[in-house]
Amino acid sequence: MFRTHTCGELRAGHVGKNTTLAGWVQTIRKFGSITFVDLRDRYGITQLLFNESLNPELEKNPLGREFVLQVNGTVSERSNKNTQLPTGDIEILVSSFTILNAAATPPFTIQDDTDGGDDLRMRYRYLDLRRPAVRNNLELRDAVNRAARNYLHQEGFLDIETPFLIKSTPEGARDFVVPSRMNPGQFYALPQSPQTFKQLLMVSGYDRYYQIVKCFRDEDLRADRQPEFTQIDCEMSFVEQEDILQMFEGLIKSIFKEVKGIDYTETVQRMSWEEAMWTCGNDKPDIRIGMKLLNLKKPDSVYRDRNASPELICGADFKVFDEAETVIALAVPGAAEYTRKQTDELTEWVKRPQIGMKGLVYIKCQSDGHFKSSVDKFYSEERLQAIAQACGAQPGDLVLIVAGAEERTRKAASELRLELGERMGLRKKDEFKLLWVLDFPLFEYDEEGNRWVARHHPFTAPKPTQITTMIEKEPAISDASKYLDHPYAQIKANAYDMVLNGNEIGGGSIRIYQRALQEKMFAALGMDKEEQQHKFGFLLGAFEYGAPPHGGIAFGFDRLCSILGGSESIRDFIAFPKNNAGRDVMLDAPSSIDDKQLDELQIRLDLKK
Amino acid sequence: MFRTHTCGELRAGHVGKNTTLAGWVQTIRKFGSITFVDLRDRYGITQLLFNESLNPELEKNPLGREFVLQVNGTVSERSNKNTQLPTGDIEILVSSFTILNAAATPPFTIQDDTDGGDDLRMRYRYLDLRRPAVRNNLELRDAVNRAARNYLHQEGFLDIETPFLIKSTPEGARDFVVPSRMNPGQFYALPQSPQTFKQLLMVSGYDRYYQIVKCFRDEDLRADRQPEFTQIDCEMSFVEQEDILQMFEGLIKSIFKEVKGIDYTETVQRMSWEEAMWTCGNDKPDIRIGMKLLNLKKPDSVYRDRNASPELICGADFKVFDEAETVIALAVPGAAEYTRKQTDELTEWVKRPQIGMKGLVYIKCQSDGHFKSSVDKFYSEERLQAIAQACGAQPGDLVLIVAGAEERTRKAASELRLELGERMGLRKKDEFKLLWVLDFPLFEYDEEGNRWVARHHPFTAPKPTQITTMIEKEPAISDASKYLDHPYAQIKANAYDMVLNGNEIGGGSIRIYQRALQEKMFAALGMDKEEQQHKFGFLLGAFEYGAPPHGGIAFGFDRLCSILGGSESIRDFIAFPKNNAGRDVMLDAPSSIDDKQLDELQIRLDLKK
Repeated sequence: MFRTHTCGELRAGHVGKNTTLAGWVQTIRKFGSITFVDLRDRYGITQLLFNESLNPELEKNPLGREFVLQVNGTVSERSNKNTQLPTGDIEILVSSFTILNAAATPPFTIQDDTDGGDDLRMRYRYLDLRRPAVRNNLELRDAVNRAARNYLHQEGFLDIETPFLIKSTPEGARDFVVPSRMNPGQFYALPQSPQTFKQLLMVSGYDRYYQIVKCFRDEDLRADRQPEFTQIDCEMSFVEQEDILQMFEGLIKSIFKEVKGIDYTETVQRMSWEEAMWTCGNDKPDIRIGMKLLNLKKPDSVYRDRNASPELICGADFKVFDEAETVIALAVPGAAEYTRKQTDELTEWVKRPQIGMKGLVYIKCQSDGHFKSSVDKFYSEERLQAIAQACGAQPGDLVLIVAGAEERTRKAASELRLELGERMGLRKKDEFKLLWVLDFPLFEYDEEGNRWVARHHPFTAPKPTQITTMIEKEPAISDASKYLDHPYAQIKANAYDMVLNGNEIGGGSIRIYQRALQEKMFAALGMDKEEQQHKFGFLLGAFEYGAPPHGGIAFGFDRLCSILGGSESIRDFIAFPKNNAGRDVMLDAPSSIDDKQLDELQIRLDLKK
Repeated sequence: MFRTHTCGELRAGHVGKNTTLAGWVQTIRKFGSITFVDLRDRYGITQLLFNESLNPELEKNPLGREFVLQVNGTVSERSNKNTQLPTGDIEILVSSFTILNAAATPPFTIQDDTDGGDDLRMRYRYLDLRRPAVRNNLELRDAVNRAARNYLHQEGFLDIETPFLIKSTPEGARDFVVPSRMNPGQFYALPQSPQTFKQLLMVSGYDRYYQIVKCFRDEDLRADRQPEFTQIDCEMSFVEQEDILQMFEGLIKSIFKEVKGIDYTETVQRMSWEEAMWTCGNDKPDIRIGMKLLNLKKPDSVYRDRNASPELICGADFKVFDEAETVIALAVPGAAEYTRKQTDELTEWVKRPQIGMKGLVYIKCQSDGHFKSSVDKFYSEERLQAIAQACGAQPGDLVLIVAGAEERTRKAASELRLELGERMGLRKKDEFKLLWVLDFPLFEYDEEGNRWVARHHPFTAPKPTQITTMIEKEPAISDASKYLDHPYAQIKANAYDMVLNGNEIGGGSIRIYQRALQEKMFAALGMDKEEQQHKFGFLLGAFEYGAPPHGGIAFGFDRLCSILGGSESIRDFIAFPKNNAGRDVMLDAPSSIDDKQLDELQIRLDLKK
């Protein structure tokens, strides 16, 4: 060992002891014949005191930032104690030192508030990783990993590794593929998830499985997506949806407790997908914010607003509302006092191209009982009051209303709600609110192909009461414009998403375990018998030999860590992330490979001009 | 939940309780109006009692092997208790049952001594995984995983994930590569190990890192090699070799204790690579066997036998020994009584093509003090005695001697030693003997290329005292026949292998952390500056910014589990293994992919005729 103690370990109780430390030079401060050096390692910072008379060789071997240093000396009490630092009571009176490695001047400062831009930090990721903020993130990740494993182990889950070199069965996202040299012309695929394997493990009787595992998806990367990402992947046998919900809210609560010291004792809220869509405008509501949306028209869509009251707003000669497909309102608590400038600014905000509304209507519910609105000339005060009441507005609240085409208006209202939540300080980083979103539609309609696609994935079971519908009805859609009237549009999935602070952190479902139902599902998605057999023959086969009822869930581990760490970016919680073009700029990967490698794989490049 | 209890849970104390179980039908035994069914799940087996009067529907819905069944009933005391079974005191008097899923007749029996051949079991791996023997293996694997994590966590190691989509830098083994659709013409590689990443993490100050991680190697598969395999991968900063040895024998001892209940209190033996080679004939000695080899000639090789006594055997007109490059002896305890038939059989054994010896000489050290030999006519009894003494033979022992070309004879002697160890019952599955093999040569000589190759990998440091030799001497070999006289042939590595029962379970080294030394190493391996920069520029760069002294180790997790499980085959300890052609016969992977996929990747097949 190059040290007897770490740089975070020594206290007043060690005064007088001889010690050897090793670490990095954080700062150097010279005062005449005395030099102070802060020595840093993963565990902390310790102040070193070099004295010209004791350390004459310091002059010949000057230290620099990030030099790797080994020092021997005596622990001494500091005259000028630093109460901010755990080691702040002591310093090391250095008797001898060795420069283990010199360091060039780093291209950016190794501090939380670094001067390095994103590109530079990624190219020198090994230096960026030295910053305490990044190190805290990776330490948090280790702690979340451990907490998850401890809970799952206690609950009888087995960690079983599934293969990485599997078969390409592209459904939705693209597979990364791996040419096989030993089987020329053939390719492995990297798993998008261990889905079919964990189901096979249930067929094999393993009862409770988990894995914290890398998955791969060759997508055009949006911000904050990575081509490789990590899942906490779980599956259980002989369970119904309720069992899964209980088990895995337990997991997250246990992580809260072990990692953040938070006792999440309250019941985890639940919301149907429909309710989420029409009261929050999206399928992953941030319930730290109240301000539920109200759809004032009954739109002709799957998310029907069952309490819609179109007569409240229609027929008042206000064409915008009369003609709009959808009109959505929300009540902002205590915002009736907003100035003209503030409401104008909000109007500009919804008119930005990213939001895309034509305007914003407001109703001020004044504390004196009066109602003022930007559409005063169309609506009587009584009518404004009725609308405000329908929205649940209290005196002092501000009702905001957007109108337009269904999908865009819903999205705009959702964004407006989140923005107001942000502005009102309702989205606190250290407040954690869990929500289960339930009862998703089993199918989505693909307009381009005039066919059904699986909303979750093709292995998700319908609600038990709807299995018969699915088996008995034929999936073909005769009239595309009336797809909502097709019985398949009404089938709900036995699926669930866990939402934390407006982010989907996990999702799963009860699975199909009957061969006939699985075949019907594949057929509904447009897969003929031959394709079913080619892609999923092993799974259909397995269902013939005694498949138990089962279900599971997968958590996005990178995302979970980032939210627990109070950050928006998953990249900050990955040791060596890729950029938005899928490149590792530190390694310079991907890169070209030798002709010999291509030759051995019996493939060649076929680059488009 | 489909059950209130598992099939392994109910005891006499539960008698009278109502219970619901779910599981698989293991056996069905009908006695008149009564049917006994053994219901199985991961946790055990429980006997069910169906009574024709209580369960009239059983006749209409006959059960079969591997059916998935849910039963409700009362726990009853068994008249005929089964003491072999934890649940053997009770049975369930079934009041109602549901067939959750029927099962076709399995293609082989779901028992430890199955009638299924290897191919069939691999095709139906999901059924093979039901066999208790396989399940025990995977449960053991989970336990080893957990024990390793617990120890490493306690010792302050952080689990940090490193990327899977990296850069191809083939050295030795081939990389699997992954074409990048977003970067046409470029490829990622799958990691053969996280080697450079863990070194970067040390440069980043993470101090102690570990990961239980998949690695990939595109090799022509020998028996019991898998293209994807799992490592326990570890790295530490500010350590010397001794620190690593202590830390990681602690890891293995902790696994012994937690998983097998074994207190491995004895000191872990150590052996230099030279000693291993000339006393056991290989670099991973099985020290459960004594019977050290003695090289009776001093061979002109790196593994010089320092106690060689060629005059003992030479000049006696026995041309075989006189002319052989190498003559190796071992003493077999208590085997002097072997019959002519037995020594003949051993002679035939060493003459098999796999061993390749021309014959076998023996000396019987009779308990009456006399020495008999197959080469009596060349050697006097005194001389035979002297040879036997040199071999450390005791009265009653049998000395066996093989002779021939150096490399082949050493291998043959090694095989002979292992074979005798096996025959003498010295290789017990439940006896575990650890050994560190140390002081490997840093370089090996590649005859074909007349150049040096790294024995471990290019990041391994030489012994500190030999760094100067390496820096100052030039690597070029002027006279290929005298490569052993080159100073590089004498350089030992700061490397170590951990051997368990004759299997290398882990290996590692102290790393190079100085840019100049790393460049010299790359140059010695024939890499020019440009190639160094292209492949490892990031690492050389990192060494400029304060790289600490560091070292690490990686354990073969599959192999470790298989030895702890008392098996020779790693495949038995992998949930979904590949066959010797790298195929997953259950998935039928690898397989051809769509033209669309090839087109998107901008590659095409270029199959050789």
